[in-house]
Amino acid sequence: MKLEIYDTTLRDGNQAPGINFTLSDKLQTTRLLDSFGVDYIEGGWPNASNPTDLEYFRRVKTLKLQHAQIAAFASTRRPNVKAEDDMFLADLVASEAPVKTIFGKSWDLHVTEVIKTTLEENLAMIETSVEYLKRYSDKVFYDAEHFFDGYLANPEYAMQTLLAAKRGGADCIVLCDTNGGMALTWELEEIVRKVAETCDTPLGIHVHNDSGTAVINSLAAVRAGAVQVQGTMNGYGERCGNANLVTIIPNLVQKMKHDLTCAPNLTGLRTLSLGIDQILNVPSDIRAPYVGKGAFAHKGGSHIDGVMKVSHSFEHIDPKLVGNERIYITSDQAGGALVVEKLSKMKPDIDKRDPIVSEILAVVKEMETQGYHFETAEGTFELLASRKLGIFADRFTVLGYRVIEDKQSNGLPVSEASVKIRVGSDISHHVAEGDGPVNALDAALRKALVPYFEFMAGVRLDDFKVRVLGNKVGTDATVRVWATFGDDEGQWNVAGVSTNIIEASWLALLDGLNYKIMKEMR
Amino acid sequence: MKLEIYDTTLRDGNQAPGINFTLSDKLQTTRLLDSFGVDYIEGGWPNASNPTDLEYFRRVKTLKLQHAQIAAFASTRRPNVKAEDDMFLADLVASEAPVKTIFGKSWDLHVTEVIKTTLEENLAMIETSVEYLKRYSDKVFYDAEHFFDGYLANPEYAMQTLLAAKRGGADCIVLCDTNGGMALTWELEEIVRKVAETCDTPLGIHVHNDSGTAVINSLAAVRAGAVQVQGTMNGYGERCGNANLVTIIPNLVQKMKHDLTCAPNLTGLRTLSLGIDQILNVPSDIRAPYVGKGAFAHKGGSHIDGVMKVSHSFEHIDPKLVGNERIYITSDQAGGALVVEKLSKMKPDIDKRDPIVSEILAVVKEMETQGYHFETAEGTFELLASRKLGIFADRFTVLGYRVIEDKQSNGLPVSEASVKIRVGSDISHHVAEGDGPVNALDAALRKALVPYFEFMAGVRLDDFKVRVLGNKVGTDATVRVWATFGDDEGQWNVAGVSTNIIEASWLALLDGLNYKIMKEMR
Repeated sequence: MKLEIYDTTLRDGNQAPGINFTLSDKLQTTRLLDSFGVDYIEGGWPNASNPTDLEYFRRVKTLKLQHAQIAAFASTRRPNVKAEDDMFLADLVASEAPVKTIFGKSWDLHVTEVIKTTLEENLAMIETSVEYLKRYSDKVFYDAEHFFDGYLANPEYAMQTLLAAKRGGADCIVLCDTNGGMALTWELEEIVRKVAETCDTPLGIHVHNDSGTAVINSLAAVRAGAVQVQGTMNGYGERCGNANLVTIIPNLVQKMKHDLTCAPNLTGLRTLSLGIDQILNVPSDIRAPYVGKGAFAHKGGSHIDGVMKVSHSFEHIDPKLVGNERIYITSDQAGGALVVEKLSKMKPDIDKRDPIVSEILAVVKEMETQGYHFETAEGTFELLASRKLGIFADRFTVLGYRVIEDKQSNGLPVSEASVKIRVGSDISHHVAEGDGPVNALDAALRKALVPYFEFMAGVRLDDFKVRVLGNKVGTDATVRVWATFGDDEGQWNVAGVSTNIIEASWLALLDGLNYKIMKEMR
Repeated sequence: MKLEIYDTTLRDGNQAPGINFTLSDKLQTTRLLDSFGVDYIEGGWPNASNPTDLEYFRRVKTLKLQHAQIAAFASTRRPNVKAEDDMFLADLVASEAPVKTIFGKSWDLHVTEVIKTTLEENLAMIETSVEYLKRYSDKVFYDAEHFFDGYLANPEYAMQTLLAAKRGGADCIVLCDTNGGMALTWELEEIVRKVAETCDTPLGIHVHNDSGTAVINSLAAVRAGAVQVQGTMNGYGERCGNANLVTIIPNLVQKMKHDLTCAPNLTGLRTLSLGIDQILNVPSDIRAPYVGKGAFAHKGGSHIDGVMKVSHSFEHIDPKLVGNERIYITSDQAGGALVVEKLSKMKPDIDKRDPIVSEILAVVKEMETQGYHFETAEGTFELLASRKLGIFADRFTVLGYRVIEDKQSNGLPVSEASVKIRVGSDISHHVAEGDGPVNALDAALRKALVPYFEFMAGVRLDDFKVRVLGNKVGTDATVRVWATFGDDEGQWNVAGVSTNIIEASWLALLDGLNYKIMKEMR
């Protein structure tokens, strides 16, 4: 049986602290997951207290999906209620989702202490709920909540709950480590093996990362016979998160040599991972295995040297296989070889013994000491190097700026900025209001520049972030502003550093717009 | 033999993108690691091109450590140089560190293609380097770089490199997965077992997280016989990071029942982890297993209900064991029960059917929609709830503020702020300059407040962060300012949200200082 990927980013992932999918986020995510080649997408728990999810299941039917099947999620019926009369099961049927997944209790403690019913009634709840849903659906999956904890506490009863789901006709029984406490993979693997010997229904695995071992636990379950892997994109989920499919998928394909529906699209993995973060507007983890910006970033001098000689000497896979790329980090630790490599991209005939190279290196180190980070501000690095190399000369000079923030009583604050620049022999002095001081500065600076540089009208400010640096704390600490600018052809990153947040923002704005001038005019 | 923890945060951790330990950071970190009970602290690679590390080894000798031994790191001697004449080995000896760790090549590819010497000379380099260092040091550890890749490519040669280290007299041979490609734990475990059968020198394990399995690989190596675990705090390290000791240590103690020197201090684990992040001034991972702010944060309604009934029903360990705590996230998904629980801490006799409860809930939801995040701004939540509950009444009213930023030509920008407030029937109007607009506002507001509230002089602003939110991008996006204030007794977190960064900062400042007034005067 082919291994299948069941994504629960939209349901279990949405339980993560700080994560909240809107309806539009859910529909966008569904499209991304489908085109990547995920087999099942669990969209949510459709019921009256989740209006977003109710609406999602109505709307998702109109999407033309290439391969993925949509799953709706709920619990088994409540104790002492007929399946036909149960509200949650009725909601599942009403969702018309092709796949229906229900969770039930496999740990006796939960049966008697949390939902407070008898062990027998719990078995009946599982069997009759699955059986009822099978009347309406070709695929009904049973999530055995807390299965591993239950097995350790009372193996016989835990197995009975699975057999109840099997009698009900479940198409897959999913073994869950709901609390994520199964730190020791070999113990989990042994239990999955025993279940596979007793129960011939296809098995799935659904684990959480509370012990830091969710990825390997998923792989070990597959090794022991599971044919469905549940997890979330970027590992989002309650507490420490769910098993991270973005790590599991390349491990299954590249390391375990499994065939997955999404395997041909593996080069789209990094784009998928970043896309989900963008939809949620959360920062991406630069350390994420395979897809992180740092996953193939070499910083140590001897490592950079080694990779340049033989790339797989310091890389476990070719970064292109997952859509990632090799990076040499600009840093004092990386030494001069790296700066030379970057400079020779800009000026192919440069001689590395040219004194300008060590001069640029010295400036880079000095600015790093101030708080610059060139690894994420290539635009600022290129501008500074181009000026030093004589490839670019500034086209305007800043004569000054002024910002006034004014707030009276409980009114809204008003931001006004004026900017004075010299272009050739002209003085251009403009004022603008804005939604905050930086927005006002941006508006005034563009007003001043557009008469001389028409292309400036097509520059977007795509992202803008502020970070407080250094050992000094509070409002007089150094701040680094990091901004992404873009136009029709691409994007560039720049940075500004100052103890004054307005000045740091101003420096980043200047670099962002100067970079455009350099691109257009050099 | 007792299992030992070898921390390489200061050396391998410093290879992480974005991480740069200063000398003072290194010394502070050494103190934290020692008092937690780590066995070995690898401080760096002492040589002329690392002046910070040279100075570190001079200074660390003056620290009075309780238990930890300091290790200095370098490579084996270079090819065709006598150990006595090798610069790197001389630096190691000169460091006077009690432990000396050297790495050498165990993968034939690296011998012939990267350092470009013969397989025989490489064996001699390993043996003679260890032997030479043993003359000066009771403990010499050998890091077998790329051991697992080497073993898979040429098991016989890889084993020979270990035996060369053994002949030289190594006290521990550390098997390294330098590229982090050993995704499949069972393969790594099998190799460690085979090594343990052939070589009776104590073994260590040093792995990287490129496949997302560094934690379990470390545990599996211990299971197969390794007695030293190398890793870093919070998993910092090159690319995807090193094995995360903050996850490994509680897994060893709680799940594998190993005795470690640091085991009695396990309740200090979260403080240690946050302390390292604070020294580096990087945000802490809320999802980190065991120690993350979210590691025991319950968001789903049924999970909160379960935990309230039986705590271990949804928690794999007691959060107190690692110095963490249970959190119920304030969120629309968590429902009213949670707000009631928080409110009843503030006002024990509150009736949850009191209309004020649903009124507060509505305000919380409305502010969350704007961009507030009460889970990290308890101070702001308490202030708002106390006002609604009638426990706290504001002692001053803001009449207005004005900020002027002025920069002429290439001079430094000047920030001036004026603040006007009413206290009782007095008007207090003050102006101050500052290092940036928020610092100036903070100074002016305190000037205005101190004459009425003397205790205000003892309030510190401990941390101040800015985050851009929402789907709108660029300089007119919504920003959330998050600040930590403190006094002699403790700390409190507050937040401000606005499209104007100055206004968002102002709101956070106001909450931070109002919180102090509430604490002192209610």
